[in-house]
Formats: sequence, C-alpha cells, structure tokens
Amino acid sequence: MSIGTQTAPDQTGFRGVDPRTGQSIGPSLPVDDTASVTAAVERAEAAFEAYRATSPDIRARFLEAIAGSLETRREAIIASASTESGLPIPRITGEFGRTTGQLKLFASVVRQGDWLGVRLDPALPDRAPLPRPDLRVRRIPVGPVAVFGASNFPLAFSVAGGDTASALAAGCTVVVRGHPAHPGTSALVGEAIDEAVRLSELPAGVFSLVSGPDIALGQTLVGDPRIASVGFTGSRNGGLALARLAAERPVPIPVFAEMSSINPVFLCPAALEAGADALADGFVASLTLGAGQFCTNPGVVIAIKGASLDAFVARAGKAIEAATSSTMLTAGIHAAYDRAIHARNSVAGVTCVASGQLGDGENQCRAALFTTTAAHFNAEPSLTDEVFGASGLIIACDDAEAVLDVARRLEGQLTATLHMVPADEPFAKGLLPLLERRCGRILVNGWPTGVEVAHAMVHGGPFPSTTDGRFTSVGTLAIDRFLRPVCYQNLPQALLPPELADANPLGLSRRIDGVLKLA
Amino acid sequence: MSIGTQTAPDQTGFRGVDPRTGQSIGPSLPVDDTASVTAAVERAEAAFEAYRATSPDIRARFLEAIAGSLETRREAIIASASTESGLPIPRITGEFGRTTGQLKLFASVVRQGDWLGVRLDPALPDRAPLPRPDLRVRRIPVGPVAVFGASNFPLAFSVAGGDTASALAAGCTVVVRGHPAHPGTSALVGEAIDEAVRLSELPAGVFSLVSGPDIALGQTLVGDPRIASVGFTGSRNGGLALARLAAERPVPIPVFAEMSSINPVFLCPAALEAGADALADGFVASLTLGAGQFCTNPGVVIAIKGASLDAFVARAGKAIEAATSSTMLTAGIHAAYDRAIHARNSVAGVTCVASGQLGDGENQCRAALFTTTAAHFNAEPSLTDEVFGASGLIIACDDAEAVLDVARRLEGQLTATLHMVPADEPFAKGLLPLLERRCGRILVNGWPTGVEVAHAMVHGGPFPSTTDGRFTSVGTLAIDRFLRPVCYQNLPQALLPPELADANPLGLSRRIDGVLKLA
Repeated sequence: MSIGTQTAPDQTGFRGVDPRTGQSIGPSLPVDDTASVTAAVERAEAAFEAYRATSPDIRARFLEAIAGSLETRREAIIASASTESGLPIPRITGEFGRTTGQLKLFASVVRQGDWLGVRLDPALPDRAPLPRPDLRVRRIPVGPVAVFGASNFPLAFSVAGGDTASALAAGCTVVVRGHPAHPGTSALVGEAIDEAVRLSELPAGVFSLVSGPDIALGQTLVGDPRIASVGFTGSRNGGLALARLAAERPVPIPVFAEMSSINPVFLCPAALEAGADALADGFVASLTLGAGQFCTNPGVVIAIKGASLDAFVARAGKAIEAATSSTMLTAGIHAAYDRAIHARNSVAGVTCVASGQLGDGENQCRAALFTTTAAHFNAEPSLTDEVFGASGLIIACDDAEAVLDVARRLEGQLTATLHMVPADEPFAKGLLPLLERRCGRILVNGWPTGVEVAHAMVHGGPFPSTTDGRFTSVGTLAIDRFLRPVCYQNLPQALLPPELADANPLGLSRRIDGVLKLA
Repeated sequence: MSIGTQTAPDQTGFRGVDPRTGQSIGPSLPVDDTASVTAAVERAEAAFEAYRATSPDIRARFLEAIAGSLETRREAIIASASTESGLPIPRITGEFGRTTGQLKLFASVVRQGDWLGVRLDPALPDRAPLPRPDLRVRRIPVGPVAVFGASNFPLAFSVAGGDTASALAAGCTVVVRGHPAHPGTSALVGEAIDEAVRLSELPAGVFSLVSGPDIALGQTLVGDPRIASVGFTGSRNGGLALARLAAERPVPIPVFAEMSSINPVFLCPAALEAGADALADGFVASLTLGAGQFCTNPGVVIAIKGASLDAFVARAGKAIEAATSSTMLTAGIHAAYDRAIHARNSVAGVTCVASGQLGDGENQCRAALFTTTAAHFNAEPSLTDEVFGASGLIIACDDAEAVLDVARRLEGQLTATLHMVPADEPFAKGLLPLLERRCGRILVNGWPTGVEVAHAMVHGGPFPSTTDGRFTSVGTLAIDRFLRPVCYQNLPQALLPPELADANPLGLSRRIDGVLKLA
C-alpha cells in the first residue's frame, strides 16, 4: 500500500497519525524530496562494490549488529509502531521478535554459504573432439535494491524487515522508502541500522531511508537506473504500478511485489461433518485477527452445502456478531474497507449473514460475513477480489465437482487451506493438483495467518498474489531474489573469488561436475 | 529473430529457402494458423497434469528417447538444417551432437533430483511461545511453456534445443513455434519428438510444433492465458516485443529472451605486448566463425593504444582481408548486416581498416573490421549495438583508466573476455568487478564463441543480453527457469508427493532444518 497512500503533511511538517484518534502524533520529521532519493541511490551505488566484497562473516555480523541496535531501542520502537499502526502492543511485540529473529536467521544463512550456489566443472583438456574449459559459477548480488515498507507490518515487512534483511544478506545495498503511515517508527529503525553500519565500519551508503508523503519518492526510486531490484508488500494497485514503472525503464528490472490474495479455505465433507463448530470458531479467529489486515487472511471458505455447512455458517455468524471492532491501519484503508463491504452487499446472490460490533474510536473495522453460491461466485469476477480487512465469504457448492470448479476459477494465491479428516483423503487428493498450480503454500488443518520464518517457507504465489511466483518474500529462500549467477571460465587462481578458489578457504559445499560435495 | 522474420510463402505452400541460392527447397509443408496455435496450447494444458506427475525416471527416459529418435533421423536432419541455414555440414554435425547431448544431460539431472529443491523443517510442537508447524518445500513446473526456435542454431536452440529440453526436464509441456527459416528441419525434429512421446506412452499434448510464416502465430502463443513461460533466442527487437506482450497480459508471465551482446574482449597491456599476432589470429577466427552469427561473437576489442595495438590491428586487418565470405542464415539477416556495416562506416571517428573477400552466392557475409577511440565510442550510443555478423570494432584507449571507463559504459553482456599474462593481474583485478556486474560469463585467455553445455555454465547476463540475468539458457541451471517452489504445511503423509514423504522413496538429498543431507 506504499504508493498511492498519502499522509497529509500538517502545518508543522511530516508527522505520524494515530489511527485510533485521527490525531497527528510524534515529532515533526524531515521530509525527503526526490533529490534526496537520488542522493540516497547514489550513496547505495557508491557503497555497493565495497559491501558486496565483504566476507560472509563480516556481513553476518552486520546483520546481527542490526538486530542488536534494534534491541537497544526496543521499547521506543514497539511504542511507536503500535501508536502509528493502531496494532496492539502484544502483536507488535511479537512482530519485533520476528524482525530481529529473521535478521539473525539470515546471518546464519550468510555464514553457511550455500546461497552462493558454487559449482565447479573442472577442465577436461584431453576431451575429444574439443577440450572442456575450467568453468566455475557463483552467485553475486544484483546491485542496489529498493525496498518499500508495508502498512500492515510496520516492523517485519518494513525498514528492517524481510526484504531489507534478505537484500543485505545477499550483498546488496538498500534504499528503503519508509511507509508514510509510520514515519516515527521508520526513523527509529533507520537510526538503528545506521548505528549498525557505523559499528560495522561499513560505508554509510549500505543503507538509506527516505521518508515523506509524496508518491514521487517511490517513483523516483524505482526509476533510478542504479536500482537493480525492488521489494514491495502492499496493494494490488500499488504493486502493479511499480511493476509497470520498472518494466518501462530503458533497462527493466524485477519487482517482487506481494500484493493480493483471498487465501481460500476448503472444508472437506467429513471434516465439516465432524467439527463444524470448532472450524467456525477457528475461522472467525483467523479472519478477525489484527482487523483482518494480513496478506494471508482467510477471505473465502468453500464447502458443499448441507446441514453441516448450515451449522458452520450459523456458528461463524454468531462469532462475527460478537466480534468487537479493531482499529485499522490508516484512514485510507478503513475507507476502502467500508467501500468494499458496501459493494459486496449489493452483489446479486451475496447475502450478509452477520456483522460485527462497531466500537468507539476512529477507523474501526466492523467484521462482516457473507454467503453465496458457487454459481454466483463463478459469475461475478469482483468476488475474487481481496477485501483488505475482516470480511469473509462462504461459498456453498452443490457437490464435490462444484468445489473443484470454484478452485479452477481462483486467481493465484499466497495460500490455500484444507480442513480434512482421513475419510476426506480422496476428495483432498482431487483438489491438491489444482491448488498447487494456484498457490505458494498449502496448509492442512490450520489457518493461513501466521507465516513461519523458516527454511521451508514460501510466502509467494502465482499472479496476482505476487508479481513473480518463483520467489518468496519470507524465509531464507527470499535471498534468491537478489542474486544472479556469474560463470568464470579458465580464470587463474589469483583472480578467482575465494568461494571459487581451489583451496576453498570459506569451507563451502560445492557442486563438482554436477555432484554436490558437502563442506 | 523468430518474430519479425518472415519467409514468403510461395505459390505451392510453406517451403524452406536455401540462403546460398535464394531458391525454395524441400517439400511444401502445412502452414499453421492461429487456431492451430490455440489448439496446441489446449493440448499442452490438457497434458500438463499427467506429465508433471511422471516420476523422474519416466521423464529422464523420455528425454533419452527424444535423443534416440533424433539419432535415427540423423542424416536427414543434418542435411536439412545445413541447407536451410547455409551453415556447413561439420558445424551442423557438431550442433546435432550438442542437441542430443544436452537432452541426455538433462535426463541425468532429472534422475539426480537436486532440482526439486527439497527442504523440510520438521514440526516443533513444544516451541514457545508458539509451536512450529511441519513445513516442506519442493519445486514444481510452472505450466505449459512456449519455445521460439532460433535462426542461428537450427538444432541446439530450436525445436529440440535447450529451452525445450530444460522445460520438459522441469515437467512442463511445450509448444514450439518453429523458426520460419527452418520449416523442413523443424518438421523432422518435431516428428522425432512426437515419436518419443508415443514410445514413452505420454499424452500427445506434451509437445507440439507450430510452423508458418505469420508472426501472429508467436503472438497468439505468448498471449494464450494457459502459457506460463516463454523461452526465446533471437534479436533484441524480437525479444523485447515478446516481453512487452507477456507483460501486458492480464496475468503477466516471464519471458526468457536471449537477445543481444557485443561480448567485449579486453587485451591487457602485457599480454598484448607479448603476443599481438597470436591474439589477432585468434580474434579473427572467433569473429568470422559461422559468419559471425553467434550470440557470443566477439564484437568489440578494447586495449590501450600503442605499438602493440597497432601490430594487433595490422595483423587482424590482414586476416580479415583474407577471410572468405560465408552465407548468412537468411536474406533478412544479410540485408540487416549490410545496413549495419553501411551505417557504421558513416559514424564519425570510426574507420574501416579491412573488409573480407566477397565470394559467389547469395547472402554473403563480408567480414569487416573497424577501429575507433574510447572518446568516440563513449560519445556514440549506436556503437554499443550488436551487429549480427562478422563485424568487429577495436577501441583504442589512452590509458588504463580509459579502458575502465569504456567498461563502465557497456550494456549487459553474455560474456566478457580478458587476455592477460601474470604481469596483467593488477589491471585484470581492476576490471573484474566492472565485468561481473555487466556479464554472465567471464573468460580468460580464450574466445567467447563456443558455449559448453555444463553444470557451471551461464549463458545469460544483464539486460539487454537477456531479459532476465538471473537465469541461463544453456547448461543444467537452465531448468530453474521453469520451476517454482510450493510449501506444504502439516500435510498428512498420504497427501505428500513422494519427494517430500518421510520415507524419501526417491532417495533425494534434502535440506533438513537448513542443513543439507546428501542422499
């Protein structure tokens, strides 16, 4: 949501807004203009060669130093992020731990070194009819990376978030365009990274933060010829606008935008019959978590109609009616949510079965639950659109074939979830291939909110969930976005980087003639 | 060059043209229309689920069967490819071996299984504050792939070439748009693959070939919503047109276009002084090989001015003057070459120091050697454009700093070459970081023509050498283009694909909790 979202500058400068009150908060902060964006990119380019030449150990210690600098500002950062986002302290505290944890995880990945993708094909001087040259591959960082802070994760997907951590781990310098809704938090986190840069004796251009309400900041950043790649988490419109900009450059660059997903949940027949009430409770808890402002919010439930589904709908409806409202991230997001609910109410064949409580305060997200039929869902393209917030849609299907048909009409998704018991296996096996082609992650008997930062995580998926389903923005595979292979043919040892030298001074696992040899 | 190049259909149908005579040759072949493209994609989509579910061994045997079916048609294929391309029989014979060799290499890769990228993060049920779920990742094929045959490699980059081999290895079905200059060769190779499909008892839609002179065939193919990815080798205009088409689709898809490179060769001072004559001979041999019609043709030589460079230029000029002309691939390519030479002759500061012999026959490439200064090169953007054919440009620099400055102005390249002796090490070390950022492959004391099909090869590079420098189109890493990761969270064993099952029935190496365990 970074681009297109504006925070109106007040008379005293650029300040945050507490979405619970609509009041400006915090100190007046300096506003960057496009010239300061260009200057930041210039610094990032100037620092790139020195930074990418650092050893894995130096780079790992730098990532750990960022985590340390964040820790020393822990209370201030958590307080600021909670106030600027309206997200409660416990949620932000968890997000803080996730943010420092993923920096440390990437430090361990950098040290381990498999991300370098080293391959050696030794020379075969006597091969007929032609000798084979000595060939060696390693992966190198792509260049300075632009990162856009996300509105819904003011820490873990922002200034020191996963995009920044994985780009720095890869050896890229980073320019962050801070989300305009979190100027105070961004400034605090930016200071922490600056401190780590100084303590690590790295060039200042390794990291820069640019802040301000003007969407031209982000456009200038992506358009700068020195920027080699872009990480973004936000709205579909914002991500597509950046992708267009990047594709129209004289030298196009990749944009990794994580944009839009309705995260379908399939209730298999036997599982639904066995536990409609527990499923309904779990669903509503996941749907309303954080005012539904998760990329992985379960926006759609699909099941075969009947008494069990009726029971599920009734129970979920009651839970929704009891759900208290929560503050949304910004006034803009709240207004968009209200518009989307209004629009959904007027779609033929869609029924609002329950609305949540509307509490005091500004920008309250009132949960909403809708039902429709497979026929109506398949006929109305707007029902596949994400509603960012705590709004769920239950799709009643006539039979198993209708469930598969709904699955076939889904756009690309970050996640799909199956609730099943052993008796549902044949049904689940029929669904699975359809889901694999449309999703980055498939869950069984869980809820998609809550994304583990791990080696085997994929937080990505086919378009429009992201612009590039071959990559993930969460977990250690995220580093792959910012690397590319370079082949060295017949280089003398003196010219080879250490990861490719015969002596293997970094102690790396290497693929030799196609066969992996562990360190 | 696939799109934009048209072979005029004669009165009797779609036939090849011998570029040596300009005469139509071979039988009249059926011409596909856009409806047959759509039908081919429909078959590719229909076959995709069954094909991607095949075991690694079945798929490997299929790739080997293609190589076998090609072998049984060896003489006919080589004769046809030579006649339709104007390339001599020995060159095409080598290319035939490369084509069957890379199919067999991909078969071995498929069996070995590391391309599946398996990662397991076991559940941590007792972790505080939250348990970790069981997470497993594998890579799956992206879907049906469109492949465009190249003009300059009628076998190795065409119907059964590297794009087709790597896409089939990944588990993708393939629709090839045959190059209109090689209709007879394409038909023969297509028959061989069809035979292998039948012998392997796979669905017919695993592979389709569409042929004809109409550029709408390729546009329809790339625009079809069922196509998930595109492989292309050809001109910059052709590649960019496909990339634009793909980016403008409602669901954009990646295009791997290998387009344009001038493959700079740097002659380090001591190496040039030690062996100007041998360097000149090697350069002209590489420049004129196959009428210069290689993606890796060394189009630019950069060195410091002086007596040694003068000697190099004189010797190379004599070798060029003695060089006999060769037939170019098509009349269109020949006309474009002549236009480019004419244009280069009129650039201020560029001198034509030698032209080759002009022999008999149609579409003859007359080699050309130009010189200029670093100042002129840096001032004239057209000098960084590829001239497809045996045209070389030598850039004389005032000093080492001027060499670095030329390197900085180069666009993205497939290759860069250094000629050096030990005394040149400091000079080479200064150049290397600049070249790494601009190239996919760096060679020392060799020539860039001749691309090894190997595990450690990168035939790719930053824009405009390709549309996506993170990938290669030659070598076993080419399979990465057609795969994406899917994460499975808490799936019961019965639902997991074999590569992720606890029992590891495929005997794969797997990354467990971040640590690679060999099979």
